[in-house]
Amino acid sequence: ATKKTAQPDKGGGHSKGKSGKVTLKTPKGTRDYGPMEMANRREVFNVIYSVFHMHGAVEIETPVFELKDVLTGKYGEDSKLIYDLEDQGGEILSMRLYLTVPFARYVAMNKIANIKRYHVARVYRRDSPAMTRGRYREFYQCDFDIAGQYDAMIPDAECVQLVQQVLSKLDLGEFTIKINHRKILDGVFGSCGVPSEKFRPICSAVDKLDKSPWEDVRKEMVDEKGLDEEVADKIGNYAGFADLMLLFQYCKSLGCADHLVFDMGLARGLDYYTGVIYEAVLSAGQSIGAEGPVGSVAGGGRYDGLVGMFDPKKKTVPCVGVSFGIERLFTIHEQKKRSETGKLRATQTEVFVATACKGMVQERLKLVGLLHEAGINTEGSYKNNAKILNQLQYAEDNKIPLVVLIGESEVEAGVVKVRTTTTREEVTVKREELVQTVKQKLSGL
Amino acid sequence: ATKKTAQPDKGGGHSKGKSGKVTLKTPKGTRDYGPMEMANRREVFNVIYSVFHMHGAVEIETPVFELKDVLTGKYGEDSKLIYDLEDQGGEILSMRLYLTVPFARYVAMNKIANIKRYHVARVYRRDSPAMTRGRYREFYQCDFDIAGQYDAMIPDAECVQLVQQVLSKLDLGEFTIKINHRKILDGVFGSCGVPSEKFRPICSAVDKLDKSPWEDVRKEMVDEKGLDEEVADKIGNYAGFADLMLLFQYCKSLGCADHLVFDMGLARGLDYYTGVIYEAVLSAGQSIGAEGPVGSVAGGGRYDGLVGMFDPKKKTVPCVGVSFGIERLFTIHEQKKRSETGKLRATQTEVFVATACKGMVQERLKLVGLLHEAGINTEGSYKNNAKILNQLQYAEDNKIPLVVLIGESEVEAGVVKVRTTTTREEVTVKREELVQTVKQKLSGL
Repeated sequence: ATKKTAQPDKGGGHSKGKSGKVTLKTPKGTRDYGPMEMANRREVFNVIYSVFHMHGAVEIETPVFELKDVLTGKYGEDSKLIYDLEDQGGEILSMRLYLTVPFARYVAMNKIANIKRYHVARVYRRDSPAMTRGRYREFYQCDFDIAGQYDAMIPDAECVQLVQQVLSKLDLGEFTIKINHRKILDGVFGSCGVPSEKFRPICSAVDKLDKSPWEDVRKEMVDEKGLDEEVADKIGNYAGFADLMLLFQYCKSLGCADHLVFDMGLARGLDYYTGVIYEAVLSAGQSIGAEGPVGSVAGGGRYDGLVGMFDPKKKTVPCVGVSFGIERLFTIHEQKKRSETGKLRATQTEVFVATACKGMVQERLKLVGLLHEAGINTEGSYKNNAKILNQLQYAEDNKIPLVVLIGESEVEAGVVKVRTTTTREEVTVKREELVQTVKQKLSGL
Repeated sequence: ATKKTAQPDKGGGHSKGKSGKVTLKTPKGTRDYGPMEMANRREVFNVIYSVFHMHGAVEIETPVFELKDVLTGKYGEDSKLIYDLEDQGGEILSMRLYLTVPFARYVAMNKIANIKRYHVARVYRRDSPAMTRGRYREFYQCDFDIAGQYDAMIPDAECVQLVQQVLSKLDLGEFTIKINHRKILDGVFGSCGVPSEKFRPICSAVDKLDKSPWEDVRKEMVDEKGLDEEVADKIGNYAGFADLMLLFQYCKSLGCADHLVFDMGLARGLDYYTGVIYEAVLSAGQSIGAEGPVGSVAGGGRYDGLVGMFDPKKKTVPCVGVSFGIERLFTIHEQKKRSETGKLRATQTEVFVATACKGMVQERLKLVGLLHEAGINTEGSYKNNAKILNQLQYAEDNKIPLVVLIGESEVEAGVVKVRTTTTREEVTVKREELVQTVKQKLSGL
């Protein structure tokens, strides 16, 4: 049938047309996503969406471009990365760089007091592309955020739990979620009066907060490390500290504390974080092709000031959220699938209807219609008189598990053959038993 | 809990910031999609994707912008509608107007001999927006196309079948699929020698081709309408005619001929069609708000020349496809859901965990963790001490079917209450029976 189907995945192609022809390429730093990549993407998204829905999150979509003022007000330092649209006699527009700024604009514009939303879409950065290392100018982001005035650390714990659930369900191997708090990073020890010579030992005690309750850590500081009780209590009462301890408690209750690590060295790049920050990293041994270790696959934190920057009356809506490194997750998931023979498919076709002799196109179409009616994913050849070997080969190449086969004698006898692609085993059944047989065989695969 | 949640759907807002502040609006002709719209969109897409997968279609995605040359070569007449990106020292880029041209570019660039792909994404047209009538500058398209050199009308019949399956599964009421052929439209009667006085009666005979085989139609032409046998056979052998008769036959075999109507007046707008064309319309009585009758919800046809225009050697790849009026389908589906009380929800939350007294946040989180572990979509309040009435009200407002309720006495006794939101009926079960009880109640709803 369609033996020569070419479905290249790694696009970007740079073949040039000749003599003033249209140049056949995608814009610099962009690429097409081919069938195999999209099938992989769909699998990853299905897992992530199921977790988002488990948390009762709603979805929003915003325009791919915004008024330029909306973007540049918040991200002055990145404005050289912005794709501007040409002024064609109207508003001055730019492509979004992130999903968080459009989210803050949406919340402020609609005067929303609270919302738990996810947003999966592409963003645009006129960066130096490094396509071999997976860095593109157009790429997907996948964000989950909770906006609203709530009690400390409850939504934050949900974000950490959600990261843990997504990474566990994607089954990509061991991972760690590093946690820190901007206010701690900004110098808790100094302001609490920890003597400089005790900085290191106290730091190592604090590092245990992810596993031990505050009482044990305090005991170690005072009894083992010789810190004044008063100073230890100051640390314990420090804004970020109280948050972190609460967060660890909540994560234990939610059953997602196993992967947490308190990491004083964690510092997320964006300026807008105002509280707890976190980052999920896959453990050593997992790498993306030549790119080396995978590293961070999700990151986020609390940003309580961003919505207020858009509100005319500076009304704030506290927010906390997480962004998945979705392009990396696509890559790792695809590698995993490729290593499991036979698992990577671009289609979900379950049955290929093949004909063994000429002039049977109408009979074939009837079977396709019948199987579709029963909800079975079914394809057939587009040729009137496709060669039987080509048809069987197509089913094998495309990992279609079953072939339904008819020739003149089968049509006359009112029967069909059902062939299992991997074993090449064939059974003959009555036409009226076809659907039942196919469903049984599919459920047994 | 979160009583004041505002989740406005109809965005576009035009509130202006004061004194040089950032203007809080989306770009002209664009809008945000709110939670309810996105939930509706997801339902519609899930149906459409299931049909696409039933046909073994693969998915692709292309960049949101293309080299301007790629777009303007094919659509000169529309070039005033193109959003251009600013020349920031690089390639000259423009936002895509359609998904078909990027598809043709993709096929030509990757030298693909055949592919059956779908593509769902937004396109951009700097048109006069008419947002009250649902006409935007940024909107979704949903295309299914089959490229490849195949036998006549087999892929075309699949496109018609697919339209019928999508519209039937969406269950939006009666519909018709009008079919015509460009070559017929271009004057079959004249060139076959039908006398001008017989034009009307022959036309009415031809109109029956969607229900009757060619032999019957020919008989009517010759015996009843007095046409020369020779002229009738010329019509029958006419290129487009043979295609159409074959298409009707194939559609009958596929079981999708019921909705077909042969419509000599059908003329799709785009110049690139070269063969059979079709359009699906919802029947009278269905309207979108003030916009009046719905009209066309899907349309397409055969375009055998487009890929060749991109190929340096003019190598052609015949294509046939269909594009769903997906924004209209969203609107109609949402109206239908709104009319079915209680069906329209922005979330998929199944259980809300509520606490009846103070200081129970950890107990609540443990139950959320437990229910998530069992794969049950579960939410709780973000307040330490949320009022019980607010929590129950939240569950009612958000149509969450079950509430799991604990107070101090329940925790002490190791039990939980499970409340059905609609009936307000409560049962008390042991904690270890919670998951089973919830699953039973959910499956019975």
